[in-house]
Amino acid sequence: MSLNKDSNIPLYIQVYESIKSLILENELKEEKLPSIRALSKYLGVNNVTIVNAYKLLEQEDYVYSVKGSGTYIKKIHNPEELSYLEEGHMELMVSGILPIPKDSINFASISPTADLFPIEEFKKSLVKVLDRDGGQAFLYPEINGYEPLRESISKFLFLNYDFKIDKEQILITSGGQQGLDIIAKTLINHGDHILVENPTYSGAMAAFSSRGANIIGVPMKEDGIDIRLLKSFVRKYHPKFIYIMTNYQSPTTYSYSHEKKKAILELANEYNFYVIEDDFLTDLSFGNKDKTPLKSMDTKDKVIFIKSFSKIFMPGVRIGFVTLPNNILRDIIKAKHTTDITSSGFLQRAFDEYLRTGYWKKHIERVNRVYKQKYDLITKELDRLKVYGIDYIPPNGGLCIWVKLPKEIDSIELYNECRENNLSIVPGKVFFTDHSIDSNYIRLSFGAVSSDEIVNGINILESILMNPLKNKGNEYLPFI
Amino acid sequence: MSLNKDSNIPLYIQVYESIKSLILENELKEEKLPSIRALSKYLGVNNVTIVNAYKLLEQEDYVYSVKGSGTYIKKIHNPEELSYLEEGHMELMVSGILPIPKDSINFASISPTADLFPIEEFKKSLVKVLDRDGGQAFLYPEINGYEPLRESISKFLFLNYDFKIDKEQILITSGGQQGLDIIAKTLINHGDHILVENPTYSGAMAAFSSRGANIIGVPMKEDGIDIRLLKSFVRKYHPKFIYIMTNYQSPTTYSYSHEKKKAILELANEYNFYVIEDDFLTDLSFGNKDKTPLKSMDTKDKVIFIKSFSKIFMPGVRIGFVTLPNNILRDIIKAKHTTDITSSGFLQRAFDEYLRTGYWKKHIERVNRVYKQKYDLITKELDRLKVYGIDYIPPNGGLCIWVKLPKEIDSIELYNECRENNLSIVPGKVFFTDHSIDSNYIRLSFGAVSSDEIVNGINILESILMNPLKNKGNEYLPFI
Repeated sequence: MSLNKDSNIPLYIQVYESIKSLILENELKEEKLPSIRALSKYLGVNNVTIVNAYKLLEQEDYVYSVKGSGTYIKKIHNPEELSYLEEGHMELMVSGILPIPKDSINFASISPTADLFPIEEFKKSLVKVLDRDGGQAFLYPEINGYEPLRESISKFLFLNYDFKIDKEQILITSGGQQGLDIIAKTLINHGDHILVENPTYSGAMAAFSSRGANIIGVPMKEDGIDIRLLKSFVRKYHPKFIYIMTNYQSPTTYSYSHEKKKAILELANEYNFYVIEDDFLTDLSFGNKDKTPLKSMDTKDKVIFIKSFSKIFMPGVRIGFVTLPNNILRDIIKAKHTTDITSSGFLQRAFDEYLRTGYWKKHIERVNRVYKQKYDLITKELDRLKVYGIDYIPPNGGLCIWVKLPKEIDSIELYNECRENNLSIVPGKVFFTDHSIDSNYIRLSFGAVSSDEIVNGINILESILMNPLKNKGNEYLPFI
Repeated sequence: MSLNKDSNIPLYIQVYESIKSLILENELKEEKLPSIRALSKYLGVNNVTIVNAYKLLEQEDYVYSVKGSGTYIKKIHNPEELSYLEEGHMELMVSGILPIPKDSINFASISPTADLFPIEEFKKSLVKVLDRDGGQAFLYPEINGYEPLRESISKFLFLNYDFKIDKEQILITSGGQQGLDIIAKTLINHGDHILVENPTYSGAMAAFSSRGANIIGVPMKEDGIDIRLLKSFVRKYHPKFIYIMTNYQSPTTYSYSHEKKKAILELANEYNFYVIEDDFLTDLSFGNKDKTPLKSMDTKDKVIFIKSFSKIFMPGVRIGFVTLPNNILRDIIKAKHTTDITSSGFLQRAFDEYLRTGYWKKHIERVNRVYKQKYDLITKELDRLKVYGIDYIPPNGGLCIWVKLPKEIDSIELYNECRENNLSIVPGKVFFTDHSIDSNYIRLSFGAVSSDEIVNGINILESILMNPLKNKGNEYLPFI
């Protein structure tokens, strides 16, 4: 490494650049960077120069520092091998983007399979829009979304979840994830605290932390978040918002009781924070329990309701929406504009047409019927496995089962064992904000598997649980 | 305003909340907040409490402070009146989202009109995809985009702009704006400096500043950015990247000379910054001049090429792309995933089919023919007006003319006068990062007007230029 002290480029930038290049070119065999004193002596520069260079490297995620120990290089993947996929492997498998290994039974993905998509009806809607609107269909719609679709969604909300919201308070987004990203853009200032359920959806955490939020997990219980802890965290951290899923929470599958919903609203009103309510599965309810979203109880415009149609309709249509509190309506719409101007007006028109023609009811009844059958089968099969010490709380809806493992079985080891036996599952640990609490779960999804696969998959799981697990030690784990 | 000193909520938060509510409810008649000393005395609290409350209000854009003068309330619009449109009025008119006033001639919007959209051909592609792929068309594609489309685009780049880029280094985005947003997400850390042409595209500035970038404008000249100043700014600020449009820059319509392109690349290599090259109009070239993008000269992976198809194809298809330097490929793809998972696989398949069927060539030849006619007409008409002291440099491509006004005519006053006479134009000032430099221009777009409207519009402009402008004083201006 050589520095040019006459250059216009500050020395710390030169040091930073040199080390960055070495890291990217895999030239550094050591895991640890030299100490600040050693390197500054070696290069004949001030300590501060090295401190600033290391800081920059850490900011940019090339290294991490361990207090009292030193600065370490993060493992860099070689992009030519497309190994960025490895790092987010699990996340991609879960969202259905990365195909699971061939011949493997897919208990990992919560994306629906294509055979449940109402293609014939949607094609009719698409063609009708083309014939009716011609080129108009491909102009920009309003930023907040094609007005007739916002009207249809307002009606949809009233009919399905019993709450009234004006079409002007609805923003159409390109799926639920974009809703999260835009909310993060609008609400989070660098350094803000926000609260999430623990465990929670990793895609939400990624959107929040990219804005510099400090994310604090609040344990999730069978009937919703731990209210006592939530209250003390709210007092301590003054969060901008709390992010929750009131029905069939991901990954736990738990739904909130009416009391907990009420308690959260009261807290939000008292301490003046927003509640982001993410809803992607409410429509898949197999029981008669009250699944009213929190938003329907919100009288003070404190709840931002985000809905994704990816799981209950089709991911490729990329349509979701966000309800907008009047206070920040303008800011959220501006954030949408600088994000991608608008969502596709053509797909919005087609989805509006689909809803207006009345196709929705038939579709949602059909998928409920199909998933209910799969749900009944997988729970029946799983119940047999309780003798091995596993347990779960029947969600009676949604697409997954959250299975608690007995203490002696580690979810990561079980994941590896299953993988070797052509069964894809998700170790629960990947959903937790930290590892300090009880996280010994696996998540089994039944959305993307046939009846035969459910029976075979549970049989594979049984054969593994029957035998004590070998300790797999340092085996490769494609962690999130 | 009353404070609860026994509450768990810090006093400065209480003060902040109270003032915020008063602002939102329009209860504060004064424009200026009380001085820190006066308010702390009145409330019986420490100065620091008020300082922190005011800081928070400023961070959240409710107030702004003027050094040595005090803290002022920003004008808050009432969201029920949808007046968020007012603030960004001009920007929305320009992007074609907000319809211009009825009976007005539209020299403002650079969006194409629907009659130029190749609806029949695109419908064939859509239907073919539905018949061929069925439900598969609505699954998630790869995050970086549907592989065959990336292949088609790689071929498109080679055929049209003479540069080779592997399909694995292409990311499909939902339009060019999303490309900018994702690049900002990946590259900008809070407080980073970045350089832009001055004037430039306001949507880019919005995406960059939302990530906390310090944006510095470098004057734009007839043959590209001011290289001497660029060099000195690069030395001074060590920018993360520079954002430029090499062909038919927005708003100036200027294109870069080969020499300036070379000089920028050399600088980027020497000082190690990225060049974001935004291309949305290269395909509309009426002359034979070399319009090769900078990217085709880039041997060291320093140029990130962003392409939008909104202006040259259809905005509603929401397809654009970004080329990915290997060094940050993984980070950009991750940023895309947390932004909206993927862009619509269905529209990507249809656009791929459209390109493969060979429809593109016919389409782009047609729009070139149409726009060339309009270009010839508007320049012929405008030339007549040079007697009134206006001037412009013929861009010989693109969708706009950047007209320099004589000193005695102010672009804002001219804008207002035109508006009263049913002519929509854009005052150049809205595109500048500051007002310290020569910014007395108007931009006239000919993309959305008929031949008759061009003639009539220029006649209106002439009738205004013929008469000395009345001073309009404080008239309402829907500024960006």
